Amino acid sequence: MRALKQLTAALLASLALAGCSSLPADAVRGTGDLGVVIERAAGRVKVVEHSHDSILGTVEGLGDLSHAHVAFSRDARYAYVFGRDGGLTKVDLLARRIDRRVIQAGNSIGGSVSQDGRLVVAQNYEPGGIKAFDADTLELVADVPAEYAPGKFSRVVGLADIPGQRFVYALFDADEIRVTDFSDPKHPVTTRYPAGHQPYDGLVTPDGRYFLAGLFGEDGISLLDLWKPEAGARKILSGYGRGEEKLPVFKMPHLRGWSLAAGQAWLPAIGRHEVLVADAASWKETGRVAVKGQPVFVMARPDGRQVWVNFAFPDNEWVQVIDTVEKRVVHTFSPGKAVLHLEFTPRGDEVWLSARDSHRVTVMDTASFAIRRELAVDAPSGIFFTSRAQRIGF
Amino acid sequence: MRALKQLTAALLASLALAGCSSLPADAVRGTGDLGVVIERAAGRVKVVEHSHDSILGTVEGLGDLSHAHVAFSRDARYAYVFGRDGGLTKVDLLARRIDRRVIQAGNSIGGSVSQDGRLVVAQNYEPGGIKAFDADTLELVADVPAEYAPGKFSRVVGLADIPGQRFVYALFDADEIRVTDFSDPKHPVTTRYPAGHQPYDGLVTPDGRYFLAGLFGEDGISLLDLWKPEAGARKILSGYGRGEEKLPVFKMPHLRGWSLAAGQAWLPAIGRHEVLVADAASWKETGRVAVKGQPVFVMARPDGRQVWVNFAFPDNEWVQVIDTVEKRVVHTFSPGKAVLHLEFTPRGDEVWLSARDSHRVTVMDTASFAIRRELAVDAPSGIFFTSRAQRIGF
Repeated sequence: MRALKQLTAALLASLALAGCSSLPADAVRGTGDLGVVIERAAGRVKVVEHSHDSILGTVEGLGDLSHAHVAFSRDARYAYVFGRDGGLTKVDLLARRIDRRVIQAGNSIGGSVSQDGRLVVAQNYEPGGIKAFDADTLELVADVPAEYAPGKFSRVVGLADIPGQRFVYALFDADEIRVTDFSDPKHPVTTRYPAGHQPYDGLVTPDGRYFLAGLFGEDGISLLDLWKPEAGARKILSGYGRGEEKLPVFKMPHLRGWSLAAGQAWLPAIGRHEVLVADAASWKETGRVAVKGQPVFVMARPDGRQVWVNFAFPDNEWVQVIDTVEKRVVHTFSPGKAVLHLEFTPRGDEVWLSARDSHRVTVMDTASFAIRRELAVDAPSGIFFTSRAQRIGF
Repeated sequence: MRALKQLTAALLASLALAGCSSLPADAVRGTGDLGVVIERAAGRVKVVEHSHDSILGTVEGLGDLSHAHVAFSRDARYAYVFGRDGGLTKVDLLARRIDRRVIQAGNSIGGSVSQDGRLVVAQNYEPGGIKAFDADTLELVADVPAEYAPGKFSRVVGLADIPGQRFVYALFDADEIRVTDFSDPKHPVTTRYPAGHQPYDGLVTPDGRYFLAGLFGEDGISLLDLWKPEAGARKILSGYGRGEEKLPVFKMPHLRGWSLAAGQAWLPAIGRHEVLVADAASWKETGRVAVKGQPVFVMARPDGRQVWVNFAFPDNEWVQVIDTVEKRVVHTFSPGKAVLHLEFTPRGDEVWLSARDSHRVTVMDTASFAIRRELAVDAPSGIFFTSRAQRIGF
């Protein structure tokens, strides 16, 4: 009896030690092939894996997930889910449960993880600014309001992590690009650069060198060379934007979808049924590819040989694939109704596409365009794989 | 008593279910920050993690690990260790034990994993050729001898995975580059391209487009555009190589160390105390940077702002850092004796350096060049992080 008691105690201790007591049976597994799919309407995420294209589980209680964004911990175990309602939730992909959750703002549109993995930084509309949290505990480390005049705070857009514990972002209401350095996490240092009128989104190039901010208030893009920031932002692609005709714009494209492929930048034209091509060294326009609708995401397969495009309403059931050498559409198809997002596997063999109104995620072979799998997901929007943890600017 | 027995049985069952029975206490963890360090003389690897820069454990019994190479499974749980003696070992990084091991050749120099993660392909000197194995079971799937004349088989070098389930490699004894397509795994299809004399190593660019094979038998490099392979291989950088002076070469540099950074290719000169710089579009030489010795590895920090260089004997205790914008050495230091390899963390905040004769791995901050940690490792050589699983051409 006593021996059994001791055995039981030992077993319980080892269970607790191994952290296995309430974990799924497959909790001991690699995390390099994991991801999450946002179930926008239900405030949930599906945890998925792309080695066998399956759904592993569901995590609920994440609040308002319209325009939700996801970043990942350095070890690729945790997803940081940024909700529109200011909720920041750390989801344990192995345990498939919420590890921590805070409401950090009134209106948030995303965030990123610092180069060293120790800080999670959110970009907020209300209150306008960015906030840094401890990546383990989600405790507030630093609050950096986007104050541009006494008592006036701008909405923040386009936040991206860059090397050196820095983050770059744009101020929609203040025509500025800012870089905040968290090398001393509790005492961040911010540098301000005047930019074009009403930057509405931004991205950094994969090497973290250039920040590009799309402008809502004028035609063109503000470019800041982060290796020579003292030179300031300059305007490129002055023809980019709604142009003189002021075409109706059904949805402003996501700049984070911009792609560098085959030495060229591939950009969604605003209000036009075109994808713009620009030289990635000179930033001069070199061509346009006619497509089926107003592009929203223009995303390169990781090897850059293909660029995949989805569209704004009323063409949002379609997806087109451009060959970047031939500069022409090579495939057109519909994976379902209201295609909101697409994500490539890290080495590009597959792409996952979410069709919100068909309640379906389609997994496609990017070489043959064959459907590998269709997964039932409730009103899916964003799809995010853990390989983002390994990249600059996500 | 009976209740206790049942409880014990239930606990044991749950332990078995969770796979926790003989696992380390921290086996439930992310694998995005893991890696292995080769302990060359002892036939062992250290399993390490770079979130806190620590050694997690040791796995023994891997055979002859001189010139060992490591690739990773798609889920980043397993390391495939290729030994010089033809041993191929699948190491479970979470359980810290050998999962499977086969002797697949008499003399092997490495291997890679297919784009879909299902095949591990080894490149062999003896018997000359490549072999594909099931990534789960290590069962032989296909044997592709490098036969170039009846009964004559070449040593294979420079193997790299490229999109479309293909592998590209060079034949030292046959002056050829070959591409083998494993789309139908048991019936691979090989295409042959004549190349320069005695290719001794190779690499693909990060997008998988260009294969470059360094030539031992003549000056220059063979370049094959894998997006237009029908055009065949052409020779570039004809001045590259030992040149007319036939300088003594203490160690042929590793081409896998070649780097693309800031739009330029950075290459170790052969036999000279120089790093060569070439335009990555035209492949014309654009400059040279004088360094402390004959370079072996010339590796770009992931953002491309720095290139780190180690050297052949007798300068192999030194490491230099080149600023790629200024094109000059900005830091020179010695992390120990016989520096054999270096590996960057995925987003480049740290670099790990192995000093074989000092039995030490040094972890450095790449921004400040401060030492973050020194780890005691027995005669360390190669260092490999799991982020390689997410990249083309590793």
